[in-house]
Amino acid sequence: MIKAYGSSTSGNCWKVATVLTLTNRPFQWIEIDSNAGGTRTPDYLALNPNGKVPIVQLEDGAVITESNAILAHFAEGTRLLPAPGLDRTRVMEWLFFEQYSHEPYIATARNWIAWKRVKDKHAAELPGMWDAGHKALAVMEQRLAKASYLAGNQLSIADLALYAYTHRAEEGEFDLARYSWLRAWLDRVSAEPGLTSLPAAKKAAQ
Amino acid sequence: MIKAYGSSTSGNCWKVATVLTLTNRPFQWIEIDSNAGGTRTPDYLALNPNGKVPIVQLEDGAVITESNAILAHFAEGTRLLPAPGLDRTRVMEWLFFEQYSHEPYIATARNWIAWKRVKDKHAAELPGMWDAGHKALAVMEQRLAKASYLAGNQLSIADLALYAYTHRAEEGEFDLARYSWLRAWLDRVSAEPGLTSLPAAKKAAQ
Repeated sequence: MIKAYGSSTSGNCWKVATVLTLTNRPFQWIEIDSNAGGTRTPDYLALNPNGKVPIVQLEDGAVITESNAILAHFAEGTRLLPAPGLDRTRVMEWLFFEQYSHEPYIATARNWIAWKRVKDKHAAELPGMWDAGHKALAVMEQRLAKASYLAGNQLSIADLALYAYTHRAEEGEFDLARYSWLRAWLDRVSAEPGLTSLPAAKKAAQ
Repeated sequence: MIKAYGSSTSGNCWKVATVLTLTNRPFQWIEIDSNAGGTRTPDYLALNPNGKVPIVQLEDGAVITESNAILAHFAEGTRLLPAPGLDRTRVMEWLFFEQYSHEPYIATARNWIAWKRVKDKHAAELPGMWDAGHKALAVMEQRLAKASYLAGNQLSIADLALYAYTHRAEEGEFDLARYSWLRAWLDRVSAEPGLTSLPAAKKAAQ
């Protein structure tokens, strides 16, 4: 059986469980706590020298790294990834956008504030994170004002990649009220059969 | 004719000129100075709402964003990108690695130190940039100790994506002396017919 190594609270890891579920592949989930050093052990580094979750191990032992490469791998040949050509390229644009212009801000602010609870420690950096994250959300809003999905006319791994952290962006203190098209898209994606949400962080004691 | 908009000193933009050249596609280069606001003009934002170089505009007006999506688009069907399956996934892993774990550190340190010449302003952040960049270079070294190319047994867009900033990493004060396999790979890639180097920064006055 396919093994997926990841942290259940990570949006990058959520992508893996979601694409395996939506493409009907049974898998075993192996929980790794990256905030507690679980990705820096010698055993884990032997699987992924870059020391990050998620990874997938195929039945023959081959390991696939990088959440968006995993999305593309398992989406190949399904409705979630168009055939090669401009339609596929539109999906790829969003996958790279997510890893470069979205995740580093939105996932990081969420992790600091809601999960690691080190907001005070990062007080100087957070305004820059919020600015950059809102730029990314505005780019998504501009697309979603014109179309129901990020790439093409139906759900693809572009939507899964961006849904991962956007649906918990408020945990990073990103107010989504101004993004009406984006919020409608969140509802649309969340209604997809088989799709689950990331766990919500417990509220910090006031 | 295809139009490529980019900054000649940017590794991300170098990727575009390189893949178009290696796949024998004539193109017109339109120089954009992103350090001087050239990506934030209304005309440019109409082409790429994310306000980044490079982009490519096809003959029918369609615009492709994200340097690694552009690499994959033009490499489709050539020796530079294997057919779908695990061999292609190996290429995709490196493309996402480059944008998440390599470029944000190696390209940024280079830009601050050698091109914008604002090393002093970023003195507090640079040690973290160097640490993270060396982690990425060490991951490449581990692969290149075992294989001549990053993915599979021949040149692919994985090599082009990583060569882009690695061959000028020393401008960001990354000492490559410790990475003998990586340096041999730089020589191997640089010997590819048609492949050029990024311009070297002028040395700052001492």
